[in-house]
Order: sequence, then C-alpha cells, then structure tokens
Amino acid sequence: MEKLYVFDTTLRDGEQSLGMTLNVREKLEICRQLVKLGVDVIEAGFPASSPGDFDAVQTIAQQIKGATICGLSRVVPEDIDRCAEALRGAEAARIHTGIAVSPLHMDKKLGLSPEQVIEASVAAVKRAKRYVSDIEFYAEDAFRSERPFLARLLEKVIDAGATTVNIPDTVGYATPWEYGEMVSYMMNNVKNIHKAIVSVHCHNDLGMATANTMAGILAGARQVEGTINGIGERAGNTALEEVVMAIYTQRQTYNVNTSINTKEIAATSRMVARITGVQIPSHKAIVGSNAFAHASGIHQDGVLKERQTYEIINPETVGIPKNLITLTARSGRHALRHRLEELGYNELDDVLGEIYARFLVLADQKGEIFDEDLHALMGNISEENKEIIIKCHSVATHSATTSSATVTLEINGQEITEAAFGDGPVDAIIKAINRIVKKSVSFVDFSLKSVSQGSEALGEATVKIRYKDRLVVGRGLSTDIVDASAKAYVNALSKTMKI
Amino acid sequence: MEKLYVFDTTLRDGEQSLGMTLNVREKLEICRQLVKLGVDVIEAGFPASSPGDFDAVQTIAQQIKGATICGLSRVVPEDIDRCAEALRGAEAARIHTGIAVSPLHMDKKLGLSPEQVIEASVAAVKRAKRYVSDIEFYAEDAFRSERPFLARLLEKVIDAGATTVNIPDTVGYATPWEYGEMVSYMMNNVKNIHKAIVSVHCHNDLGMATANTMAGILAGARQVEGTINGIGERAGNTALEEVVMAIYTQRQTYNVNTSINTKEIAATSRMVARITGVQIPSHKAIVGSNAFAHASGIHQDGVLKERQTYEIINPETVGIPKNLITLTARSGRHALRHRLEELGYNELDDVLGEIYARFLVLADQKGEIFDEDLHALMGNISEENKEIIIKCHSVATHSATTSSATVTLEINGQEITEAAFGDGPVDAIIKAINRIVKKSVSFVDFSLKSVSQGSEALGEATVKIRYKDRLVVGRGLSTDIVDASAKAYVNALSKTMKI
Repeated sequence: MEKLYVFDTTLRDGEQSLGMTLNVREKLEICRQLVKLGVDVIEAGFPASSPGDFDAVQTIAQQIKGATICGLSRVVPEDIDRCAEALRGAEAARIHTGIAVSPLHMDKKLGLSPEQVIEASVAAVKRAKRYVSDIEFYAEDAFRSERPFLARLLEKVIDAGATTVNIPDTVGYATPWEYGEMVSYMMNNVKNIHKAIVSVHCHNDLGMATANTMAGILAGARQVEGTINGIGERAGNTALEEVVMAIYTQRQTYNVNTSINTKEIAATSRMVARITGVQIPSHKAIVGSNAFAHASGIHQDGVLKERQTYEIINPETVGIPKNLITLTARSGRHALRHRLEELGYNELDDVLGEIYARFLVLADQKGEIFDEDLHALMGNISEENKEIIIKCHSVATHSATTSSATVTLEINGQEITEAAFGDGPVDAIIKAINRIVKKSVSFVDFSLKSVSQGSEALGEATVKIRYKDRLVVGRGLSTDIVDASAKAYVNALSKTMKI
Repeated sequence: MEKLYVFDTTLRDGEQSLGMTLNVREKLEICRQLVKLGVDVIEAGFPASSPGDFDAVQTIAQQIKGATICGLSRVVPEDIDRCAEALRGAEAARIHTGIAVSPLHMDKKLGLSPEQVIEASVAAVKRAKRYVSDIEFYAEDAFRSERPFLARLLEKVIDAGATTVNIPDTVGYATPWEYGEMVSYMMNNVKNIHKAIVSVHCHNDLGMATANTMAGILAGARQVEGTINGIGERAGNTALEEVVMAIYTQRQTYNVNTSINTKEIAATSRMVARITGVQIPSHKAIVGSNAFAHASGIHQDGVLKERQTYEIINPETVGIPKNLITLTARSGRHALRHRLEELGYNELDDVLGEIYARFLVLADQKGEIFDEDLHALMGNISEENKEIIIKCHSVATHSATTSSATVTLEINGQEITEAAFGDGPVDAIIKAINRIVKKSVSFVDFSLKSVSQGSEALGEATVKIRYKDRLVVGRGLSTDIVDASAKAYVNALSKTMKI
C-alpha cells in the first residue's frame, strides 16, 4: 500500500473563511491536536497577508514538532520571502505557492496571459527553492483550466523544483468522474509527474468534496487537503475525517494508508468546533452527535441483533468511547481521571485537583455528569483568561419593562462596578460590562446551547464580536445562561486586549 | 431531456431520525411548501408504525394536492392494508413497500432465506396493487446485496406490478463509482427494467450521498430520494437541494430535467429547519448562511471583478434575494409587504396588519430590521398557540446565589401565577411554569441563537422536551433571552396537550 499524505488547512483555508483571527494560543492548541491526530502537513497561515498571520505562522513553526509546517504564498516575490522568514526554525517547512490558471481567473482577475502565468509560477518556485526544498505549487481554479495548458504548467513547475502539485477544484464545481479524469490526465500527460506528489484540494459547494477527493486518490493523487469538520470558504473544504474514514472502511478499493490515528478524530473535531465557534451539525458524517445514533425502531432492532446491519464504523474507532459508568458528586478523583483519560484528556497531573473541585461544584448543581459536561468543563478551563475577571453580577428582568444588570469586574487587580439597563438580561449585562471596559467593539452573533439534558444543564454561550475589522470568538460555560453569556463576552473582550 | 422525479422523504426518513413526531399542522405546512418547491412525490410517513403516523398520512393524503402522496410499508400484509387505508382520498397515492435484501440483513435481522424474501416481496406488491396502481418497491441494504439475486428479485417485483424500484445504499457505505456500477448492472440485467422507474436512495455516512445519487442518475436512475437539508438517520439522507443544484449547474452532463422551482429552495430549507429544530450548518452546501459568502480578501477581490471567479451559482437562483432596502420603524406597510413577498411570503392580506404591528414593536427595539428578523417574525407567527399564554414574568438572578422567577400564565381563560427558584433564570422560570402546568415532561435540549447582529438582536430559543416517549420541539422569539426561552417552553408544552 502506498502512503497517502494528509494536509490540514484548518488554520488557513478554514480560518480564512471565518473572517476571524484565532489567537496564537488557540492555533497552537489546534496544532498540537493535529500532531496527535497524525496529519503530515499543517498549513498554518498566509504570512504575507497580515502581521498577525505572520506571527502565528512563525510561532507555530518554532514550537510545533512532528508535522511539516506549511505557509501559503502568492507567486509575488515579497510574499515568498515573508513566507520563508515566518517558517524559519521549523523542524520541517514547506512553502505553498501558486496562482490561478483558469482562463476566467487569468483574464478577469489577474489580467495576465497564460505565458505570463507560467513565467511567474516558475520564478516563484525557484525563489521558494532558495529557502526550502519542500515546495508545493497550487494551480488555483485548476478544474476550470484548459488541460493541455495546465499539464504544460505543471511540468515546468516540477522542473523548477516543486515537489508537490496541487490541483484544486476552487469553486466546488467538479463531479467525481470529471475530477478523477482531470487528475488522470495530469498523471498521463505531465512527463515528470513521477517526480512530484499530486495533491487534491476540493470544495463542497455541490456537496461532493469528499467524493471528488476519493476520485482523485483513485486516479493517483497521494496527498489530500482538507479541514477538520469541513470548515472553509462558502460551503467549506473537504472534511478530512470523512476521507480518512472512507479509506478506513474500504482500504482494498483505495489501496493507500494514512498516518492518521482515527481514535483522535472525535477529540480533534470537538476542539476545532469549540475554538472556531463553528458548531458541528448533528447529522455531520463521522463526527455529528447523531452520526452513530439509531433512531427508528426497525434500525434499533437491527443493530441490537447485529451491529453491522446499520453501522459501517464502530464509534470507538473514531474515539467515541462507550459510556459505562455514571459520574456524580459521590464519584472519586480516580473515577473522574479514568473517564477523562478515556475521553482523550491526558497530562492531567497538574490540573486534576482544580478540575475535580469544579467537577464537584457542577455535580452538586446538576446531579449526573455526562461526557458532554466533562468536555465542556475541560474546554472551559483551557479558555480562561485572567485579564478581566467577573466578580459578581445580578440581573432583574420583567416581561413588560426593560431589564437591569449590575456587574463587578476585576481588571488588573482593581474592582469596578457598573449598572445598565437593556432589552433583556443579556443586553443589560453586556451594556454594564461595556461601561466598565469601554472598548469599541460591535456585537455580531450570540448563541447558547445546553451541553447535556435537563433544564439545570450546563449552557455553553458563544459570542462573536468585531474589533478593528477582526472577528473574535468568546465562550463561557455556566448552569446560568446570563452568567454563561457574561463570561463569553468577557472572554472575547480579553482576547481583544492582545490585538 | 428526460424527466427526473424528485421524491421527498423529509417527513418519513427525516422525521424518523429525530425520534420526534411533528404534529399534523407542522407536517401540512411542510407539505404545502414541498408542493410549491415542485417535488413529485411526498413520502408522508409509515402509517402502520403508530396511530399518530397513520393520522398524519391520512390528513396529508386528504388535504395536499399537487404531488403524489406516498406511505411506507413493510411487506407485512397488515402494514400494506393500513398504508392503503391512510392514503385513501389522495389525489395521487403511492404505496412504498419493501424488505431487506443483503445477506447480512436477511440472515441476521429477518431470519429469512433469499427465496422467502422474493416470495414475500412479490406477495406484498400484488397486495398493494389491489389498492393503488403506483407501487414503489424498496430493496433495503441493496448496495450490500448480491447483484444476481437483486436483479432476479427486481424482475419479479416489476412483473408483480411495481412501477418504481428503489435501490438504496441504506448504510451510506457506497462510493459513486461502485454505486453507479450497481445501478448499471440492474439496468442491464433486469429484463423488464424499462417497465419501471429506477430510484436511488442514499445516506451520507461517508459524506458521499450526493455524489452517489448523481452516479445513479448517470447510470439511468430517473427518481432521486432525499430530504430537505439532508436530515435523516445517522449522518442523514441525500440533500435534495444539492442534487437539484448539481443538475442545474451541469445540465449537459446529466441530461435530465426536474420540476423543481429552485427559487423556493431557501424558503423550504428554512421552514424545515425551524419546524424540526435541526439547524442548518453555516457551511451547508446551497442553503448554509455562508454558502455564498466570500470571506478572504483574494476571493472578495475576484468576485467584485467577475462574480463567476468564485461563484458557480447565483444566490438568487435558490431564492436568496439581494437586499437593497433597509427596513426601520419608519418603513411603511407597503415596503414591508414588498420585502416579505421578495422573501417568499405570499397570501399576506389577512395577516399583514398584525405583522406590521409586530414589525413596528421590533423596529423600535432594535432599529434596523434584517431579513433574518423578518424570517424569524414570520416563523414565530405561524408557531403561535392559544392554549397557554404567558401574561407576564419577572426574574431576578445573582451570580452567587440561585435565581428566582415569577410567571403568570393564562390557561383556558384563567390566570395563574407561580414562583420558583432555580439554577439560572431559565431553570427558574421553567420550574415556575411547571408548577402551573404540572405536566410530566423531561427537558432534553435547549439552544438559543441571535437571528441578526447586535446585543439587542432577536433571539430564537429552541426547546426540546420528552413527553410520553415523544420528542416535542418548541420555539420562542424575543429580544429578551429569558422571554424567548419561556415562550419556547410554553410552545412545546402546548403541543403536548394534543398528544
């Protein structure tokens, strides 16, 4: 079996789609999990696009070991230099440079002739090659390009030193048979194609990104690009977890192997959802909460008789363990640790004391503790910040009038109290917080969901605010929705302190 | 071009997956929209499964004109009789009967030999034929069946009178090329296949349902089965909107036509999300809120120069109109009506007065009114019930202690007030409501999202409760999240009154 390289672009194509900048700590957290998952390449950002992106790629390149760190770059010389500078210090570095190659893009967007595009591409690869040996070239909108032209271009860039060539379906227009044919054409018509790895990069505009990717693999591609949970521009990129599990279920068809540890899929998916604020749809393949649920009577009956009647993947394979014990306020430290480890949380020695204390508070409030509560608890701990602390708050609301809120915050050791009225308790408390913090932010989006069952369940609030043209996501967890909302807002505000 | 029939199973395979029963009014609302969308067949339910499902199918059969109404039935004689009874009175009726055909299902689930399966299938089709001429036969788990056996079975059921034969990939295991081959095999090896329409029914467990469906069409299938938004068992069914738009973008490839009015896609999608409580992921192809958003600078630049650089579908084609005017408290009745009609709301004559009054209240609270607010307002109006009315409520909450709530409800003309304390304001108000209503329900899930921007935005709360083994969804809309939550809970409780 041949090796299939897995290229994760959650932090580049995924993040780019959110109109948001995750902070460096969040990106590092995702990278560490991607290494645990076993991806081969992490595309960490587009260094020339902004100083923030440059810093993030640089920090990731310096701190993350165990995967190749890749930076995106247009063919512009300055972009390539910036990209190389950001990647300096990486254990293994890749520059991913390229340009649009379809007649529509070359003509309307770039205003360049095909020959000019070839020239710029070759020059870019050569320039990148001065810095690193691992060069990937992307041919943007390849699927709508003219095949003989693309073949000629790829041959030239491979000659110039590209070690991977990426043939994207940028607009998500391809069908599997057409996309497979396109990859086959390149395999057969680019003379030096055996000197490079062919990479597939698909978008899901018509719901066919995964199938197109699989078609590319069958045609000879040996790298797949995608994101966790399929986040990305418009309808998103190929969901890597789907590709990995499609291969897992039908190895004989694809005849390739990946380095992915499938048992880390669920944990990775949850982390990316939490940090990006892009929730996982309940019916999402592989990682949705319903993906392994059997609702109808006929299906339940079948599964009880023989699991495979309606289940092609054992949920434990993707890291969803069977829940055998129930945790309550009477559960000991050992039982909690055991369950957390089963759920994929390790390195608990230093934090177990604090986690256990919070677990007991929560168990007192809500009785039974579900896995979802534990995930929320763990996610919340890694979210915390010390810049702004909510000391206390109170809210009074009445259906016929406005709500009022009083809140006390501690900022740099100083306690400040303010009150405000608003339209509902969340609006009131946010206005009270604004009177203290005085940051010019705009409130973009708010959502709240219960993380387990019961009206006294934990609620996880997600707040998106805009600050200086950036979207910032904050999260807060509490059994009280006003408290969860205030925490989420303060969490987002704290992040703006570093922008 | 040949006609491709569109078979919607949102109310059968979709609803079945939710473990919930939508009420008849909700089902009728969805059916009316499906007729507007132009589907050919509506699978309304599985009449033999419960008295509630029987009633729903019967009511739909009697009231919905403009599409064939279909009922599901196992091959069991009593099932078929019940199904036929439920369908009586329909303008056009179809019985959809069938049985599992894979060795695994026949052996482990049914305990029947292949010959017994053929015998039962033929008998079922013949029995159904006594009642209606339009008979569809489903071969459950067809994709994992032995092809010569399946071909023999299909030939027999077509001889017995089946006019449509459905070849499902029940467990979502197929790849497009395999699934296409399977359909081709049947087209070539079932002698009387030209006497029936071949139907494809896929599941999305590996993210390939749409591609598999397209492969089926290329191989000769002329009916597609799926659901709106792709809801369904586990990772869901084929999303009909994706199939329709894949055909729309590449008609020459597929060479088929559907009767779908694509401009109704967005409205249908929103309605199904609202009524089922299964939210549309932001990155969902065709209908997600980000599906036509261009976030990155390069993409925005490209789209401004030439839309097609990054956009293969004009959003207006699927019913997302361009927003040119802004509505505020100063907007007149005419402007509101005009915008609502653009958004797909018709038959406004009787309700415009009330809608306008509410619009003014909302516009006073939040200034600018976005399309999302209008959708929420319209959805909310169709949700209302008069069984339980919230007259007023007040809540006091403090971070260090418990919250308390007082609520006054009107039930059957009588006003009752109660108070309760709880863990957070939502828990408190729900407990106060419970003291008045005294129904034995359990609280399953709660979520809240802002429908537009700003901390004073409208919030839409969705509450799921369990009552007598059924899941019931309630929704509430308010700029105050406590108020939205109380409304959603009362809405759900009202629905339990009819169970």
